[in-house]
Amino acid sequence: MKHEIRVLGIDDASFDKFMDRRTMVIGTFFRGGNFLDGVMSTNITVDGTDSTAKIIAMINRSRFKSQLQAIFLDGIAVGGFNVIDVGKLSRKTGLPVIVVIRRYPDFRKIKAALARLRMQEKIRLIENAGKPVKMNRVYVQLTGISPERAKRMLDITCTHSYIPEPIRIAHLIGQGITKGESKGNA
Amino acid sequence: MKHEIRVLGIDDASFDKFMDRRTMVIGTFFRGGNFLDGVMSTNITVDGTDSTAKIIAMINRSRFKSQLQAIFLDGIAVGGFNVIDVGKLSRKTGLPVIVVIRRYPDFRKIKAALARLRMQEKIRLIENAGKPVKMNRVYVQLTGISPERAKRMLDITCTHSYIPEPIRIAHLIGQGITKGESKGNA
Repeated sequence: MKHEIRVLGIDDASFDKFMDRRTMVIGTFFRGGNFLDGVMSTNITVDGTDSTAKIIAMINRSRFKSQLQAIFLDGIAVGGFNVIDVGKLSRKTGLPVIVVIRRYPDFRKIKAALARLRMQEKIRLIENAGKPVKMNRVYVQLTGISPERAKRMLDITCTHSYIPEPIRIAHLIGQGITKGESKGNA
Repeated sequence: MKHEIRVLGIDDASFDKFMDRRTMVIGTFFRGGNFLDGVMSTNITVDGTDSTAKIIAMINRSRFKSQLQAIFLDGIAVGGFNVIDVGKLSRKTGLPVIVVIRRYPDFRKIKAALARLRMQEKIRLIENAGKPVKMNRVYVQLTGISPERAKRMLDITCTHSYIPEPIRIAHLIGQGITKGESKGNA
């Protein structure tokens, strides 16, 4: 695997859960872990169901599409409970998906919240993404990629922290453009 | 000068000159030419006069302020003809300002446009920024910094192109969040 492997990192922008009906999803196109080549974005509904379709469209219309080798997601949901169907995302883009999670999720709590919000169908999406496995200092859920290959991608892109640069930068952008300034480091 | 020198790169987001009254200005906080530590933003009026005050406030409220050693601007105007008073920006932040320009500006044309728009007072701001001088593959206007020191900063931060990374990335973000995807490379 080349050090200049092309990957897309995806995270959502900040939003006000009481006020905002929509928020932005940011994509960063990276060569390896140091060279940010492009930024893309799309708008999704807070707690909605459109994230999968919107992210697929954002990727498939991108001029970087043909170069891409993997998609990194910062967790499986954007804009609150707008849960991404990672199987569909992988199928419709033809790309492997690596969901990166900082702390092991409390699935019981998440499922209870989704049930309470009458979003039971999203529980299936979370279950289908597979059990998070420890990799380096994070947890990952893998679709369409072997653990060995995913680990190599993680090693290449984690140049400045234990979070892959494409995700770390998508996160900083998503915060910086909505909150005035990004907080934290990843 | 250390390779991890802290600098802020500033550029504006895209906007529709017929439709948009306001646009965003993006700031990227970099350590050297590789490590993006933070993203900040502020909103300004298209063709307005608030860019200087808004950018000063954005910088002075930033948690990165105390570490900053210089401000890089991608040209002297943001949001169309919202010309930045670089002398005031430097004074009110206590930081040197390096305006980076890709091609030598056609000042006659710019001044004629400003006169036509009854924005004569902005001509003075442009003149006060000083004559652009060639440095590496770009032109710069310097405030509060020697050419030698500015060149060293340019050399450190131009890691991926002849444009300093903080500006190149601010530009990619400004395009990516408004146009759906950034275009070009810098």
